[in-house]
Amino acid sequence: MKALVYLGSGNKALQDHAKPEISASTDAIVRITKTTICGTDLHILEGDVPTCTPGRILGHEGVGIIESVGTGVTAFQSGDHALISCISSCGKCVYCRKQMYSHCTTGGWILGHKIDGTQAEFVRIPHADTSLYPIPEDADEEALVMLSDILPTGFECGVLNGKVAPGGTVAIVGAGPIGLAALLTAQFYAPAEIIMIDLDDNRLKVAKRFGATSVINSTGGNASETVMAMTGGRGVDTAIEAVGIPMTFELCEKIVAPGGVIANVGVHGVKVDLHLENLWDRNITITTRLVDTLSTPMLLNVVKARRLDVKQLITHRFKLDGIIAAYETFGHAADTHALKVIIEA
Amino acid sequence: MKALVYLGSGNKALQDHAKPEISASTDAIVRITKTTICGTDLHILEGDVPTCTPGRILGHEGVGIIESVGTGVTAFQSGDHALISCISSCGKCVYCRKQMYSHCTTGGWILGHKIDGTQAEFVRIPHADTSLYPIPEDADEEALVMLSDILPTGFECGVLNGKVAPGGTVAIVGAGPIGLAALLTAQFYAPAEIIMIDLDDNRLKVAKRFGATSVINSTGGNASETVMAMTGGRGVDTAIEAVGIPMTFELCEKIVAPGGVIANVGVHGVKVDLHLENLWDRNITITTRLVDTLSTPMLLNVVKARRLDVKQLITHRFKLDGIIAAYETFGHAADTHALKVIIEA
Amino acid sequence: MKALVYLGSGNKALQDHAKPEISASTDAIVRITKTTICGTDLHILEGDVPTCTPGRILGHEGVGIIESVGTGVTAFQSGDHALISCISSCGKCVYCRKQMYSHCTTGGWILGHKIDGTQAEFVRIPHADTSLYPIPEDADEEALVMLSDILPTGFECGVLNGKVAPGGTVAIVGAGPIGLAALLTAQFYAPAEIIMIDLDDNRLKVAKRFGATSVINSTGGNASETVMAMTGGRGVDTAIEAVGIPMTFELCEKIVAPGGVIANVGVHGVKVDLHLENLWDRNITITTRLVDTLSTPMLLNVVKARRLDVKQLITHRFKLDGIIAAYETFGHAADTHALKVIIEA
Amino acid sequence: MKALVYLGSGNKALQDHAKPEISASTDAIVRITKTTICGTDLHILEGDVPTCTPGRILGHEGVGIIESVGTGVTAFQSGDHALISCISSCGKCVYCRKQMYSHCTTGGWILGHKIDGTQAEFVRIPHADTSLYPIPEDADEEALVMLSDILPTGFECGVLNGKVAPGGTVAIVGAGPIGLAALLTAQFYAPAEIIMIDLDDNRLKVAKRFGATSVINSTGGNASETVMAMTGGRGVDTAIEAVGIPMTFELCEKIVAPGGVIANVGVHGVKVDLHLENLWDRNITITTRLVDTLSTPMLLNVVKARRLDVKQLITHRFKLDGIIAAYETFGHAADTHALKVIIEA
Repeated sequence: MKALVYLGSGNKALQDHAKPEISASTDAIVRITKTTICGTDLHILEGDVPTCTPGRILGHEGVGIIESVGTGVTAFQSGDHALISCISSCGKCVYCRKQMYSHCTTGGWILGHKIDGTQAEFVRIPHADTSLYPIPEDADEEALVMLSDILPTGFECGVLNGKVAPGGTVAIVGAGPIGLAALLTAQFYAPAEIIMIDLDDNRLKVAKRFGATSVINSTGGNASETVMAMTGGRGVDTAIEAVGIPMTFELCEKIVAPGGVIANVGVHGVKVDLHLENLWDRNITITTRLVDTLSTPMLLNVVKARRLDVKQLITHRFKLDGIIAAYETFGHAADTHALKVIIEA
Repeated sequence: MKALVYLGSGNKALQDHAKPEISASTDAIVRITKTTICGTDLHILEGDVPTCTPGRILGHEGVGIIESVGTGVTAFQSGDHALISCISSCGKCVYCRKQMYSHCTTGGWILGHKIDGTQAEFVRIPHADTSLYPIPEDADEEALVMLSDILPTGFECGVLNGKVAPGGTVAIVGAGPIGLAALLTAQFYAPAEIIMIDLDDNRLKVAKRFGATSVINSTGGNASETVMAMTGGRGVDTAIEAVGIPMTFELCEKIVAPGGVIANVGVHGVKVDLHLENLWDRNITITTRLVDTLSTPMLLNVVKARRLDVKQLITHRFKLDGIIAAYETFGHAADTHALKVIIEA
Repeated sequence: MKALVYLGSGNKALQDHAKPEISASTDAIVRITKTTICGTDLHILEGDVPTCTPGRILGHEGVGIIESVGTGVTAFQSGDHALISCISSCGKCVYCRKQMYSHCTTGGWILGHKIDGTQAEFVRIPHADTSLYPIPEDADEEALVMLSDILPTGFECGVLNGKVAPGGTVAIVGAGPIGLAALLTAQFYAPAEIIMIDLDDNRLKVAKRFGATSVINSTGGNASETVMAMTGGRGVDTAIEAVGIPMTFELCEKIVAPGGVIANVGVHGVKVDLHLENLWDRNITITTRLVDTLSTPMLLNVVKARRLDVKQLITHRFKLDGIIAAYETFGHAADTHALKVIIEA
Repeated sequence: MKALVYLGSGNKALQDHAKPEISASTDAIVRITKTTICGTDLHILEGDVPTCTPGRILGHEGVGIIESVGTGVTAFQSGDHALISCISSCGKCVYCRKQMYSHCTTGGWILGHKIDGTQAEFVRIPHADTSLYPIPEDADEEALVMLSDILPTGFECGVLNGKVAPGGTVAIVGAGPIGLAALLTAQFYAPAEIIMIDLDDNRLKVAKRFGATSVINSTGGNASETVMAMTGGRGVDTAIEAVGIPMTFELCEKIVAPGGVIANVGVHGVKVDLHLENLWDRNITITTRLVDTLSTPMLLNVVKARRLDVKQLITHRFKLDGIIAAYETFGHAADTHALKVIIEA
């Protein structure tokens, strides 16, 4: 089969690769119909994720059709259409029993990272019963690819952790796909204000279309002053960090109101300064989280009920043969205005 | 001044009445600009509320302008525009310190009940600092009358207690003003389904317009079967009782899903049968509540942010001189299609 | 093997029975070392549980040693010592994914009810990985039998649902084993007062020893007046119903304070009167629950840390050969002062 | 009257000072019977709290007898015995209405900081109705001095924010009075392990006596390794920082388990390094808080019910005339083994 293989820092190729096989009774083999590329895939290609070694098929998102299942799989059978979660979970370990699937002792984020992933014609999904979700018959499968990772990530790490609430004030720092996913799902809770902050005017324009009540281009360096002015000097109830660098995290520290939450979503490579000398008495909460995808069934319900149009996140479409071009497009989002690119396998 | 006075079961009159005066340092006198009639006022007039004695000026909703304040009032001054909460709260007692203002030991629902109310030119508001809310300059004051009682009641007793959540399924039994307020505010939480149940097709039509995803006319007596069919035999996550009679409460018992909530909003005059022989192992929750109006600041934010159009609840308008006609119109809602009637003082 | 078999209303016998075999890949066969009798077993024998049919081996509690496991079991192997949960859960279905294991679509309370149970030399445990718990090496296994059912039931249905909190006031109606389990676990949350109510002075004496701050013999019918007097007329924050008849539930309705919770634990055979005409405005919560046993790992921790002495619930010990006598002793608790009886297999 | 006055960095004196007078209708004048010294008072004396200016009477803890009240005070009258909260709260402002009294717009921590405090014969308490608590008749008033600040601080900032739970694992870094208050109140929730970490063996000995299940002297620099070894490599569910320097906060970062909480209690003067490169995917929560004293009524209940012996925190007693010696004793705790010192006025 064809697969996009990581070949070490800076290198990747679409290669012929052996088709995966069932290796545990709880495995399923899924024929991928649609997959996509995540910012994390770019991090791997930059060599920033040492736990991902050369030779690995990338990708942790997608939908497909069950090709075969192990003897221990009871919820799926050959021919079923399934949504693949970016998180594999056994459903049994101490973390899974606490719904912290991200830390499953034999799962977590392993797809396209520690085991071969979804940017291929086929993928092996471990713990299939608790890592795949049945797709309703009349669903738009392409749209559901957004539910493999970015929607639950924006929702769980940003919105849930950030305690977004009716009438509240939210700032989202970073208007990339994850920040936009947070923006879309923040609206589940009817906040009064959602302020979107980014360096890229195009993304801010998209944010406005997606429901931001105001936008700030932070290029000039005055974003914190602008937010404070907008909120009567009080700051925001929820600051969602969706970039992953010290500057954006420290912006969140400046704009969070007393009693508010900084919900970190970004993947950080270096430490940040936490100004406890200012924050120790401000009654704030800071959260971190790798998505647990416990909200996937709820998100499926919301999409099915047409309360959320996730398809607007998709800007480009490619065939698996064109996945190198897809990476180019996704990797140069400032120029291409790409949000999420669909790859049809 | 003119005031609508309760004269004993079945009797009321618009009478001349002494203007109220400040009697405690925490009082404010408010000149009413707009008030309205509540279903509870009808209950009083039917003689069903013995704690309300003849001679009482009715009404517990409204907006107005501060006429004068006691020496202990610090948050308001003469000339300020204010929203009157149906609940008076001292902010000091054991219940107020727990945000259970409805049970304030020197307040609670007393306006138009145990002390004179708002269907008059002036009203005395005890505990003014914690029982009035400042009205923003550019607000539509008429719309805010909906925030004195029905919006917080539908929201707190129905939606908050009912734990309405993204992707969930909600049934609201009773499409009167309170049920419709629950319908409007349930949408703060993006449930997948909101099923509205009533006997009156006109109210169900309104419910559709207000955001119900489906409606059931329960005249035939098959409402529970219909709900179960709609939910794949599972029932609803949240059943909101907004009528106040045994039949509608027992309907909620039939349609609540395992793990679900029955949130009672209705004012009940008699006991109901609780079928614990069916429900003891169903992991359900039943809640009751007199509105605490702790959500009023949030609701003001949401209305200000134009995330909620409460004005659509207003169907008729009268002058205080015409309040007897207003009662007629409100009291015959099946014919007049009245929801809330505004009375301009 | 020997097994205690239900033979229809009023009849049971210790019989020879075929040893259970693995029928699904997720099954385990457990050799029982210790089991016990539950009040529910008595209900079955009285013919009150029609879903339990004659020929069934009773019992849903116990500890034992793994004899064999199916090919899909990964967390246990032959020779492991395991605690058996009264609730079987697949870990995969919609209810299990919400931690509502009691409603598992292929599990729930089935042991000794819909499938053969633990009052035997061997038992088949379905969904073994998520229905058994490993026993630490140095544990007192006899004590852990209390964690199969009554401890999690008292804790989850009574204490957790009842929102017992530091400084709060709790009443527990019914001082049988489940009520006492609620009493023991309520103390996890340092309530200021725990009032125990029962008809049996011996059980009340036990309750005092187990930590009740006061006890009321409700024989005279004045229990509600006594509770109200004890609480300054306010009532209790948490009323735990651990009997299962209308009179005791309605007592809870009378003694719950505004803002309080009635947590039902009792198994009810008939409806009760819910006095909504008194309670509609009291901001109370009523909960029902079949135990989910989601607290079992926590309870194991607490017992291991010697913060909870569950062994004091055990009053009598028998061999499996003497199980008929064990039933006699347990069934006549008023005379024998039995709480829990251990049966060694 | 006599009062302990801050005279600028490093200087203080017991001086004659004008007796305070009622300046707002909601004030009370309290005759102090017992007060104490807080670590914060030492910070002020070191010149680390610039918002506290020379001439200020120090102290924010104590009990006393109401001398007189303003016309707006309704809950207290002359002669009442009252506990003084370290936090003054109006009960009306947006923060007070959210129970975030620490950020009261006209209160918060002002006593002995921005207005004159309690280390004097008399003190003026603003917002008396919502900043004082009635003392039950038979209470040990000396013990209640512990409830002015350190008990609610340890409980709210450490235990509540830290989500201490039955069966959980807690580490408390810092065994000073506040850390010990967290230790005492953590036991409200029956955690399985409470590990106390400090540099001072005497304080660790006290911690053992107060209920720590294990103690670590962190002098050698291996505290994090020891904690990880003690917890099977997993870390603690709750890490309470009760010192206020980077090293101790960063220790908490190292020992918090996935899904755990770092609850900061310490007063920090400089920033700390937050290692998001390690923590971004660990699902942790960090909280900061200035005590709101919303738990004071609960703590009064618990002390009254004899579930908590707070008096064991008191090691030394002085008269107001000897307050300079009291400061000496408290300021050299390593030598004097002082925890809290009582000053009788």
